[in-house]
This record gives sequence, structure tokens and C-alpha cells, in this order.
Amino acid sequence: MVRAAGGIPRFIPLRLNKTSGKIMSSDWVLDPTELTNLFNSRTKAIILNTPHNPIGKVFTQKELELIADLCKKWNVLCISDEVYEWLVYKPCKHIRIATLPGMWERTITIGSAGKTFSVTGWKIGWAYGPAKLIKNLQTVHQNCVYTCSTPIQEAVAQGFELELGRLGQPESYFLSLPRELEAKRDFMAKFLSDVGMVPTIPEGGYFMVADWSALGDKVNLEQETDELKDYRFTKWMSKNVKLQGIPPSAFYSEPHKSLVETSVRYCFIKTDEKLQQAADILQKWKASA
Amino acid sequence: MVRAAGGIPRFIPLRLNKTSGKIMSSDWVLDPTELTNLFNSRTKAIILNTPHNPIGKVFTQKELELIADLCKKWNVLCISDEVYEWLVYKPCKHIRIATLPGMWERTITIGSAGKTFSVTGWKIGWAYGPAKLIKNLQTVHQNCVYTCSTPIQEAVAQGFELELGRLGQPESYFLSLPRELEAKRDFMAKFLSDVGMVPTIPEGGYFMVADWSALGDKVNLEQETDELKDYRFTKWMSKNVKLQGIPPSAFYSEPHKSLVETSVRYCFIKTDEKLQQAADILQKWKASA
Repeated sequence: MVRAAGGIPRFIPLRLNKTSGKIMSSDWVLDPTELTNLFNSRTKAIILNTPHNPIGKVFTQKELELIADLCKKWNVLCISDEVYEWLVYKPCKHIRIATLPGMWERTITIGSAGKTFSVTGWKIGWAYGPAKLIKNLQTVHQNCVYTCSTPIQEAVAQGFELELGRLGQPESYFLSLPRELEAKRDFMAKFLSDVGMVPTIPEGGYFMVADWSALGDKVNLEQETDELKDYRFTKWMSKNVKLQGIPPSAFYSEPHKSLVETSVRYCFIKTDEKLQQAADILQKWKASA
Repeated sequence: MVRAAGGIPRFIPLRLNKTSGKIMSSDWVLDPTELTNLFNSRTKAIILNTPHNPIGKVFTQKELELIADLCKKWNVLCISDEVYEWLVYKPCKHIRIATLPGMWERTITIGSAGKTFSVTGWKIGWAYGPAKLIKNLQTVHQNCVYTCSTPIQEAVAQGFELELGRLGQPESYFLSLPRELEAKRDFMAKFLSDVGMVPTIPEGGYFMVADWSALGDKVNLEQETDELKDYRFTKWMSKNVKLQGIPPSAFYSEPHKSLVETSVRYCFIKTDEKLQQAADILQKWKASA
């Protein structure tokens, strides 16, 4: 899309800054020098994603301040994908970059009903920001989207009215959902570790990236023809072990795909029964010859 | 879109073939020679719309056969927009061009739940055709649309299950809707004629195009700044007479806009009360100095 608009996309990956011990999504970081060097007077916009898919990183105040300072220094717009904003695990807190000083006027924040209310098939979301930026978005919306399904808009509006009245109370969906998911996250992290994978524990979202290098000799990657190992791993696993993952390199630009080529992304917003089945499948596979 | 895909769009308008008496939408026709001359070995596809918006024309078997013969002669795809297929007034019958000999394999037919079940805010539709053509559509769908709202898909599926069981019976929505609309159509045609407009009586759809030339001296077109008269007419009417129409030239290519520059498009899928209000507004305006 950047290229179609005549721009040149520049990419910066999160990089893992430790090689041993328990890995949290906060251990994946942007290199401040690398990021600083990507900004110049021709930079138009940055696309930020927090909480992050696929790593699950929740950007800290300090990390967001660095991005914000660069945006302000170079007069750059920020498009902030915060669709997982209500799916953050303690003690992390989601910070909207638009709330940082000088950022509201240059930020468009993206939200999603699918992620907020766990109804990903509803296909509705929103963008907010200052009037001068939203005006341009409205032109695009009118000509590309035209309208979102009106009964679904009504359902989302009623969902928010209900939940705004419950904010901070025990029955709040925005409290109960992450609480429920945190247990599922920990269960998945354990069963992945038990078979020798090295998961990154996400602090937001409902995906878990895990390195499967230690299991390489149990997988016949030669049976698949894709170029990247993570594609071959996920396809082979789907066909032979009947466990479905996603190749995380799909989220990376060409030069950075190798950073996650021995990883897989699993989804843990599943029933406990389904997660137990996944654990059983993996354990049985691990125990097999 | 054709230009964005590297193509060169060619346009052919429906032209009115009579100058007096009652005008039906069937009096708007394609010139066979003009149409024939637009086809050549570089022609890739034709976009057809029947029942037609804004004129309301329902293409006849003979008219469709000419188009089909040209498609077959020049090996041209047909993209057939038939969203108003269930909104056809007696004695007209909607014919799907894909049912003509040799056309199924080269036709993609477009349908709309919004038009079929009168729920235009639902934003869901469908396309069907031979597997070899739909395969390409699926690629576009996966990358542009991704998915349509799933609860709305379910609602549409249930709507069709219900209505398929009722086909041809008195309680069929596909029978009752056009019957209901035909009376509204005739009511609108009468009140437009009563004030001096010359409506084209549509044989399909729920829009009516009417020529307002005879009322030109009652409208102050100088108050509006748009280039085309039909834009100025509709804006002036909205502001001064409080009746909302649509400028039909919006549907035409640049060289053909003048064909409908003294026309307006009105919608008649409204309550009888609302239509009576429109009639009253126009009559009052006509009677004013």
C-alpha cells in the first residue's frame, strides 16, 4: 500500500535481546539507533502496532516516547494499530501513543470490534484522530468502504454502552477477558516448553510465538517446498501432527524474515478443552519415535 | 478501476428513442451498431447492468442476445450486475445473461443482499460464475474484502432458505415486494407528471428518472455553482423545495452526461406517507409564484 501510494517503505523489526532464560515479549525491542536512523526529512508516517501481533509486546512509556520524539522532530504522522488494547496482561498497561504530549495532532489510532469484543467475523473497526487528519480518512472511507454493516454498527455501539458502564467493575468484559486469557496463555507456554519449544510469553494479544529449533530433527521439512522454514514447519505440522500454527515470517519484510524462520505462531483464545487437545497432540508427537 | 488495471474503458449509453407520449424504461436502448463498433480483438470485458440503475430498464432476451453474441464473437468476459433481479414489474421478466447459450463460462453475475432483501445497510453481496473465473475473484476477495460480516452472512443465508421455500407462493417476498413497489412507482409517476415533469416509467428497480425541463423557469440554477445542470437542480431543490433527488449524470461517462442533464433521479422505496409528502411538496411548489 505504501508503494502503491508512491512511497518507499522502511522496516524495523523487533529483535530479541536475550539468548537464555524465560523470554517475555518485552525482551523483543526496537534498536533506538536503528530506529533513529530510519527517520529523515522525507519520512511521512510511521505505522506502530501495540499490543503487538505476533510477538505480543506491549510498548512501554519509554519506548513510545522515543517514537513520539522522532515523529515530532521530523514532523511525521503516526498510524497506531492498537486493536489489542483491551488484551493486556498484568502488570503491563496499554498506553495510547496519541495521549503523549504533541502526539494527538499527528496520530490516527486504529481500533477493532473484532478484537475488543472477540467477534473477529464482524468485520468492523474504527479510526480516530484530529479532525484535519480524519477528514482525509473520510474521503477514503466514502470511496473504498462506503459503509460498514449497519446492524453490526448498532451491536458494537450497544456493546460499548454496556461495557463503559461496567468499566473497572468485576463483570467488565475488558477485565474478565484478559484474566481468562492469561490462564490460557500460561497453560500454552507450559505445554510448548514441555515439548522443547521456546515460547515468548506475550504481554498482550492472544498469540504466542515459539521457537521450535530444538524439535527440528522431529520434523521432515524436506516434504514441503516453501522457501522459508517456518512455512514448511507449519505445513508439515498441520498435515502430520494435526496442529495448526501460522508462519510468523508472514509479518516481516524480506530482509527480516530470517529473524523468525525457526518460530511458529499459535493462537490461545480457545476453549480449555481445545488447548488440552493441543498439549496432548504435542506430547504424543514428542514421545513418538 | 478499469484504468487502474491498465485498461481503456469504452462507454455506451442507453439513449431515449422517442420524443413524445408515455416513456417506459424500455424506450431507452443501446444502439446495436454503436455497441458492435465498440468490440474488437482487444476487448477484455463488458459490464452489463440489468435491471438498470438509474433508468430501470430490464434488458430483453433480444437485447441480451446481441450482447452475448458480441461477447462470444470477440471472446469477451461479461460482468453482469443483476442486483435488482427480484425487483421487476409485470409483464417484464428478468433474464440472467449467464443462462444464454455459451454465456455461463464467460459471465460473472453480481448479486446483492441489500437489494434482494431491502437491507442496503447490510453491505453484503455475492458473485457467481464458472470455477475458472471465480478462482481469480477469490484471490481478490481474500486480499481486498477478506471476509464479510459472519452474522450478516448467516442472516442472508436464512433469508434465502426461507424465501426459496416460498417461491411462487403469495407470501413470497420476491412477489410481494415488487407488487408493493409497483403501486408506489405508479403513484410517483403520476405526481411527477402532474407538476410537469416527464418521468421514465421503470420496469425494474426502485428509482425513477424524470426530465424537469418544463419546470426550468421555476428553478434558480444560478444559485448553484456546479458545472452540470442536474447537479444544480438537485441541490437547489434540496435547499429550496426540500425534496431530495440524485443527479443522474453521476452514472454517465463525461461525453454522455449531457443525455441526462435535465433529469433527476428519485427513489420510490418509501412509505406511502413519505411519497404523499413528496407529492404535496411538489404540488405546493408548482402552485407557488
